[in-house]
Amino acid sequence: MMEKEKIEKLLEDVKAGNISVSAALGNLRNLPYEDIGFAKLDMHRSLRSGFPEVVFCQGKTTEQIAAILTRLALNHDKIIATRATAEVADAITSRIADATYYPAARLLIVDKTGARKAPPAGDEKYILVLTGGTADIPVAEEAAITAETMGSAVERSYDVGVAGLHRLLAQRDKIMRANVLVVVAGMEGALPSIVGGLVSRPVIAVPTSIGYGANFGGLSALLAMLNSCATGVTVVNIDNGFGAGYFAHLVNR
Amino acid sequence: MMEKEKIEKLLEDVKAGNISVSAALGNLRNLPYEDIGFAKLDMHRSLRSGFPEVVFCQGKTTEQIAAILTRLALNHDKIIATRATAEVADAITSRIADATYYPAARLLIVDKTGARKAPPAGDEKYILVLTGGTADIPVAEEAAITAETMGSAVERSYDVGVAGLHRLLAQRDKIMRANVLVVVAGMEGALPSIVGGLVSRPVIAVPTSIGYGANFGGLSALLAMLNSCATGVTVVNIDNGFGAGYFAHLVNR
Amino acid sequence: MMEKEKIEKLLEDVKAGNISVSAALGNLRNLPYEDIGFAKLDMHRSLRSGFPEVVFCQGKTTEQIAAILTRLALNHDKIIATRATAEVADAITSRIADATYYPAARLLIVDKTGARKAPPAGDEKYILVLTGGTADIPVAEEAAITAETMGSAVERSYDVGVAGLHRLLAQRDKIMRANVLVVVAGMEGALPSIVGGLVSRPVIAVPTSIGYGANFGGLSALLAMLNSCATGVTVVNIDNGFGAGYFAHLVNR
Amino acid sequence: MMEKEKIEKLLEDVKAGNISVSAALGNLRNLPYEDIGFAKLDMHRSLRSGFPEVVFCQGKTTEQIAAILTRLALNHDKIIATRATAEVADAITSRIADATYYPAARLLIVDKTGARKAPPAGDEKYILVLTGGTADIPVAEEAAITAETMGSAVERSYDVGVAGLHRLLAQRDKIMRANVLVVVAGMEGALPSIVGGLVSRPVIAVPTSIGYGANFGGLSALLAMLNSCATGVTVVNIDNGFGAGYFAHLVNR
Amino acid sequence: MMEKEKIEKLLEDVKAGNISVSAALGNLRNLPYEDIGFAKLDMHRSLRSGFPEVVFCQGKTTEQIAAILTRLALNHDKIIATRATAEVADAITSRIADATYYPAARLLIVDKTGARKAPPAGDEKYILVLTGGTADIPVAEEAAITAETMGSAVERSYDVGVAGLHRLLAQRDKIMRANVLVVVAGMEGALPSIVGGLVSRPVIAVPTSIGYGANFGGLSALLAMLNSCATGVTVVNIDNGFGAGYFAHLVNR
Amino acid sequence: MMEKEKIEKLLEDVKAGNISVSAALGNLRNLPYEDIGFAKLDMHRSLRSGFPEVVFCQGKTTEQIAAILTRLALNHDKIIATRATAEVADAITSRIADATYYPAARLLIVDKTGARKAPPAGDEKYILVLTGGTADIPVAEEAAITAETMGSAVERSYDVGVAGLHRLLAQRDKIMRANVLVVVAGMEGALPSIVGGLVSRPVIAVPTSIGYGANFGGLSALLAMLNSCATGVTVVNIDNGFGAGYFAHLVNR
Amino acid sequence: MMEKEKIEKLLEDVKAGNISVSAALGNLRNLPYEDIGFAKLDMHRSLRSGFPEVVFCQGKTTEQIAAILTRLALNHDKIIATRATAEVADAITSRIADATYYPAARLLIVDKTGARKAPPAGDEKYILVLTGGTADIPVAEEAAITAETMGSAVERSYDVGVAGLHRLLAQRDKIMRANVLVVVAGMEGALPSIVGGLVSRPVIAVPTSIGYGANFGGLSALLAMLNSCATGVTVVNIDNGFGAGYFAHLVNR
Amino acid sequence: MMEKEKIEKLLEDVKAGNISVSAALGNLRNLPYEDIGFAKLDMHRSLRSGFPEVVFCQGKTTEQIAAILTRLALNHDKIIATRATAEVADAITSRIADATYYPAARLLIVDKTGARKAPPAGDEKYILVLTGGTADIPVAEEAAITAETMGSAVERSYDVGVAGLHRLLAQRDKIMRANVLVVVAGMEGALPSIVGGLVSRPVIAVPTSIGYGANFGGLSALLAMLNSCATGVTVVNIDNGFGAGYFAHLVNR
Repeated sequence: MMEKEKIEKLLEDVKAGNISVSAALGNLRNLPYEDIGFAKLDMHRSLRSGFPEVVFCQGKTTEQIAAILTRLALNHDKIIATRATAEVADAITSRIADATYYPAARLLIVDKTGARKAPPAGDEKYILVLTGGTADIPVAEEAAITAETMGSAVERSYDVGVAGLHRLLAQRDKIMRANVLVVVAGMEGALPSIVGGLVSRPVIAVPTSIGYGANFGGLSALLAMLNSCATGVTVVNIDNGFGAGYFAHLVNR
Repeated sequence: MMEKEKIEKLLEDVKAGNISVSAALGNLRNLPYEDIGFAKLDMHRSLRSGFPEVVFCQGKTTEQIAAILTRLALNHDKIIATRATAEVADAITSRIADATYYPAARLLIVDKTGARKAPPAGDEKYILVLTGGTADIPVAEEAAITAETMGSAVERSYDVGVAGLHRLLAQRDKIMRANVLVVVAGMEGALPSIVGGLVSRPVIAVPTSIGYGANFGGLSALLAMLNSCATGVTVVNIDNGFGAGYFAHLVNR
Repeated sequence: MMEKEKIEKLLEDVKAGNISVSAALGNLRNLPYEDIGFAKLDMHRSLRSGFPEVVFCQGKTTEQIAAILTRLALNHDKIIATRATAEVADAITSRIADATYYPAARLLIVDKTGARKAPPAGDEKYILVLTGGTADIPVAEEAAITAETMGSAVERSYDVGVAGLHRLLAQRDKIMRANVLVVVAGMEGALPSIVGGLVSRPVIAVPTSIGYGANFGGLSALLAMLNSCATGVTVVNIDNGFGAGYFAHLVNR
Repeated sequence: MMEKEKIEKLLEDVKAGNISVSAALGNLRNLPYEDIGFAKLDMHRSLRSGFPEVVFCQGKTTEQIAAILTRLALNHDKIIATRATAEVADAITSRIADATYYPAARLLIVDKTGARKAPPAGDEKYILVLTGGTADIPVAEEAAITAETMGSAVERSYDVGVAGLHRLLAQRDKIMRANVLVVVAGMEGALPSIVGGLVSRPVIAVPTSIGYGANFGGLSALLAMLNSCATGVTVVNIDNGFGAGYFAHLVNR
Repeated sequence: MMEKEKIEKLLEDVKAGNISVSAALGNLRNLPYEDIGFAKLDMHRSLRSGFPEVVFCQGKTTEQIAAILTRLALNHDKIIATRATAEVADAITSRIADATYYPAARLLIVDKTGARKAPPAGDEKYILVLTGGTADIPVAEEAAITAETMGSAVERSYDVGVAGLHRLLAQRDKIMRANVLVVVAGMEGALPSIVGGLVSRPVIAVPTSIGYGANFGGLSALLAMLNSCATGVTVVNIDNGFGAGYFAHLVNR
Repeated sequence: MMEKEKIEKLLEDVKAGNISVSAALGNLRNLPYEDIGFAKLDMHRSLRSGFPEVVFCQGKTTEQIAAILTRLALNHDKIIATRATAEVADAITSRIADATYYPAARLLIVDKTGARKAPPAGDEKYILVLTGGTADIPVAEEAAITAETMGSAVERSYDVGVAGLHRLLAQRDKIMRANVLVVVAGMEGALPSIVGGLVSRPVIAVPTSIGYGANFGGLSALLAMLNSCATGVTVVNIDNGFGAGYFAHLVNR
Repeated sequence: MMEKEKIEKLLEDVKAGNISVSAALGNLRNLPYEDIGFAKLDMHRSLRSGFPEVVFCQGKTTEQIAAILTRLALNHDKIIATRATAEVADAITSRIADATYYPAARLLIVDKTGARKAPPAGDEKYILVLTGGTADIPVAEEAAITAETMGSAVERSYDVGVAGLHRLLAQRDKIMRANVLVVVAGMEGALPSIVGGLVSRPVIAVPTSIGYGANFGGLSALLAMLNSCATGVTVVNIDNGFGAGYFAHLVNR
Repeated sequence: MMEKEKIEKLLEDVKAGNISVSAALGNLRNLPYEDIGFAKLDMHRSLRSGFPEVVFCQGKTTEQIAAILTRLALNHDKIIATRATAEVADAITSRIADATYYPAARLLIVDKTGARKAPPAGDEKYILVLTGGTADIPVAEEAAITAETMGSAVERSYDVGVAGLHRLLAQRDKIMRANVLVVVAGMEGALPSIVGGLVSRPVIAVPTSIGYGANFGGLSALLAMLNSCATGVTVVNIDNGFGAGYFAHLVNR
């Protein structure tokens, strides 16, 4: 039974006098999350934010992740687990039906509602995900699959970095028609500035750690994007494809 | 005469045979910007992005700013000049009608279309601008006035920082009904995480340089916001109220 | 024989004339520590600080750690070894009775006095250890077990991070009744500010290295906590659960 | 009338039926803070934390500070304003009786209850504030006066830095008898480690920005203190004497 | 008398037997520079590098600069003094004929040979200096005037930053025909990557300190340029227009 | 068939009326790059920059690199793949004839035109590559082989660091006759300053990550080279031998 | 009366029975320093280190400095006050005879023993102080005057930076004969590596903050010197001429 | 045959007329180093600095190291190879007699002259090497063995860190009698300040990378030591035991 139905049931019981107001209050107090010791599962989030708990796998043991996902899967139709290793994926997909693993994006998605959103058809609003290079694709896919899982149509244009401008300009139509843009780039992180100068729609810049030397783990791209002289650009953490895809969906829907 | 009209005129001339295709091409090539030596005024932007050139005053001489704004004012109804000092403001407001200076926000706005957008009425979509403290207000006002100038309705909730949570929670209604949120905070920069956890709308986080010591000019707030564990949060540069207000309007409209 | 008894014996010998003052002085000079070449074991610490030597295992060879702990165990009832690997733990637990290894917390505890302190009963003063997420638990356990070994009662509330505020607020009673609070968080490190705003008891903030990208190994959480706008918050090193638990016990006892 | 009395009055009115529960709820909702536009004055804090609002002056205009302090002074017996410039102090002391300015410490204290706490008498528990050098005294005084205003007895030992160890060791009695210690040092920030090795009471380390070159604005002392090999040491922000004094009082009382 | 003539004279004296070999050796040892106590004037440089001593004014007193330039002017036809303040310029131009001050570029040039190089005529090889914005012009002028003083023809294209790509692309002819390019940009420093992708000639990137917040004094542009994904780009220090102009001339001649 | 020939063929077809102008335009639009999904191969670059696509292998899968190189090899005579691991090299050399792997330099070169450029003969212009130490040789070889592949003659002088100046000065002839110099050094990165002071030709400085401790991954050498007091020095990214060799060839040819 | 005499007097009193051992112990305990409230004057240092207290003026008020120096001057023949401003110097030289101010070096020296050490005569051992540029001279003078005040003979060679190697090599004799060398340089900080490669005597490197941009306040020179590939080089803080001169004297005497 | 003898032989040949001056000059020009392609072996160093070439193994292949050491061993009695791995040591000790490997210190020493220097006897001048903790010993041994190999007598006092001051003070005699002191410490790096305050002899501080979190690879100890308020302290690179031992010997001899 979904959480929303639980709450409706409770409120009807209150109305019908089956439960006192103070007892209902007590229930509600505890309902928002389920405490399994090492984690407090936020069952209330779907009411608050329209989307189930997202699980950040890094730093958790495989056992903890399995326990968390198993419990969440009882109450939710969709769960997104980010930064999941292949080992975690093996442990989960054998236990939870409807779980799919995307190795490049390191995403583990539970989706009982069927396939994620297809590419845009006709005039459908869409998110465009661009990358500067081929090596940025895993982060871009994390963004794209997240947004598709949440229900947005997504287009992709990969390897259109600034050193070969004609490759980017050839995507001009796709770029101009996009409703929201996620621009993923490492090294000098210049792509969001170019794209931001072309469009009048929100651009979400994702710095990646691709590079070496004075790249300092993505710092060069991060600082460049924060200092973009183009208007209409905001930034997420280095390699945070998930955050960009999630935010893009909030804007796009 | 506005640029758009110029272009229409040109195209009609082409159609009427008054000008050859190649000559028209030449005109169009040069039309997009006006070259005044030390600056290339981007007259094409209003077509591209739906909004006129924005002038970043820092690092330009007062003479340069005056020349740029005077030229832009011939062709545009609205101009935003950011980081304008009082000295610059004096030089401009005496020369350009419809120019207003907002000293705290350091904004100089030229607006021939009348008053900027009023606070939201009824169910009107609005941007909510929050600050952690009183000292963050100048950056917040830069965001709010920018968005209002561009046409968005804006609500404000200032000094609702995380150390007195009841002050923030008392704004809950205003927060839950907002369409987009701009959250401005210095020091530990925690407010966007709290707000991002409450809502399911896009949150734009603005770190400020308010603080001292290990604040390192806003670095502490910037890093905190980039690492926010709340979903749906993106970040702009330290003290970049303008960028946040501009982006918020793109999402809100 | 414990060190304190040794000293008492010496002083009685002085009083009884069994040893001259200058000879006793010589003994005392050397007594405070035992020199085993690669280490000077601080036997005097229990007199000075009320607690035996703590051994920081990182950077020492397994042989060195074993030698140090074996010598300390001759004179002390309680020893705490931090950052002990599984390999070190195996080498020690086979040689020293009463040694227990806590793998997540990487603590190796020698305790001849029996079980560590139980959770608080009735109105007993206690330390509350909170974490922002599940991945912060190892550092939190290092703090909690340290404090319990030293004799403080400890409560735990894990995974109550700021992005799901209702999870934290549901702990309100436990929080308000705590005598000292240890707040462990990575990423944006905002939890201590929230907790510090709720209570009027000392809050010890522990940044963790949990995160990625612009987290820079825990720097984001560290800077955030140092810049906390809440009063009553102090900070320890990144991932230093031991230091926080030790300090919390000093305040709590 | 103090806030606490206001709330008691309200509750009595509820009990007596002078006001409905829902109306009382409304009052309470708004009571916790007073909204004066650019600031939300946290009138609830004295209930929550046992102490009135603290005002951080930096970044606020003199007018804003004056307005905030004037309102707070209506409801509170004690107010601490930190980082107050001489200009701010002049504006306030002429308007608010019982306001005293401490220029070195940059503190502006409103205290209607009379003199702050005197030095410790007899066996009275006290906080000891030490500095490495003379130049650290302003930060130390910020700590000491804060703690005294809150009600703690304070001892001072200034200029006892590690390069002249006999000066420190001569303070040994004062150090060993202290209940809590605040250790203020710039440059290499070594003093807290030495003091932490001598005592078994909590040590609060305050790095200062005193130094030059590779001091990087206090970074050297901050990092040194965070990495202290002494147990029982926690750290506050660079130059944050107020935070250290406040925390020390929480531990000491 | 120029240095070169001095040396020739010396060598002729050796040949003629007017001076012994060992004495000549001694003269040559000391000739390369003139020692005026606080400076050793490198009279040998024009032989070695084809260009006279360059004087870096920052950190020197006006008296020192005047003494150095006066001595150099006795032996050289061209001198470049960088980072010269207006005060320095006043002191020098009144004493040395043929000295010209360029306030924006902070260059003080002594040139006895006449006007610096004119813009390119016909197919003449030229250096193209571009800037991202108007605020970058002082650094660009430092580069351009340096190169012109050394004898290169220079073209300028200012304010062609990446956020308005059509402004840059309109310079395409000028860009494609340039022999060497100096690209000056602050903020995200993306312009060299774009330009480097368009041309097959050497591009010298100059980061400027224009920007604020996470710009960190030019660090963002510097890192971006060092990480440029375009081939054929090298970088000089932040705001080092002189170095870029000098290097560009070495390549161009 | 090479790209250039394709374009000539197309233009001839247009001239001959075999293809309409609009159809030719369509062809040209797509010709510049070939889209293989995860990469857009820049077939246009040889026209633009005189040299084929360079493939940065780091961050790409072996399968992606193989696919990219195989496609590029159809249309180009020379390809340079940088940062290629031995595993990548094995996969490629078995599939593409004319591919050679240089393990120390991590370069994989496809060259159908025969051997790369031999060392300089007679008065031939050459690039001189110097290193401070033996450990810098891999980066130096990356520079040297890149330049030779592009067609420049290269001389090498390795292990001539500043701590044994006579080793450097013994190379004086080779240094003075070089047309362009690439100076590779780690640790304190002083060599480019010395060399830049000796010559009047362009010096390209390459910092390496050789060192430890306060070397911070090459930061010490990078900062030293950016701050070189010698004129005529520019800098590339840490360990970027390829970039230096490429740039040196642009200057040298 | 000098401190040493005080102690001798005390010991004679003990011997003569004029004072009990325990009373003498008490005296000695307090003797080492004089407590004047805001400072503890280390009267014991001359016994311990052979030299009187050094006063670091930065961060102290003029009144504090005057009080400290006045007290010290009663008991010592030589005092060195570093980082003294002109204002401080005025206040002191009017009150203390034998006080001399060196404005460039910001040193205020009290010396009752007569002139400081003259330059070396004959074979006398000497310290050689070198600078890379003219702008480094103030730091160099701080080193030289400190060493001369302590009693070492000092030679100076200024403006012999690495970009004009012949200027340095011309000092070869002076360099090879020096007993200790202090090498002062900003920017890329390469000079100590060159000098360290020439000599077999201790080299003390002093980075200065001379430079701009990626110099980051002296960081570039500091890191370069710490990473020197020359053996026999140690480093002091940025701009710490005093520390280098003091250390050099310890080695030289 | 040793290099010195080679040179004497050459000079005698000149004197005897067996070789012309110009031929001898040519020989001398090339003699100083032997070129083996990837390295230039500095045979001249023993004349210049009194000690043979030191080989920094990190970044060199085992084959390169073997070749270098084999050649050097032909001409020198003593060679020090630093940062040698066990694999390198195996390869060398099987080929070169008189080679000894010290695994903790990672030193590989070739010494044909017999045993390194024994501990000090009687009043012999000695270097004292101290460490803060046990984990610092490898770096300390690198310093001690280097100095002993060069001919200095060395004393050791390990694990005398500042948190247990009595352990340090118990070494007081050994400390006060030392001629030079090498102080090795990680974490907060406070030990050199304490030691520097006790003695009047040169103190060489060696920061180590021992620690975690805000230690940032030894940065905390490095900055602390550079900012030491004790006089007479200089610093070497993080973990640079070799450099400290070498410098200490230069001072001590």
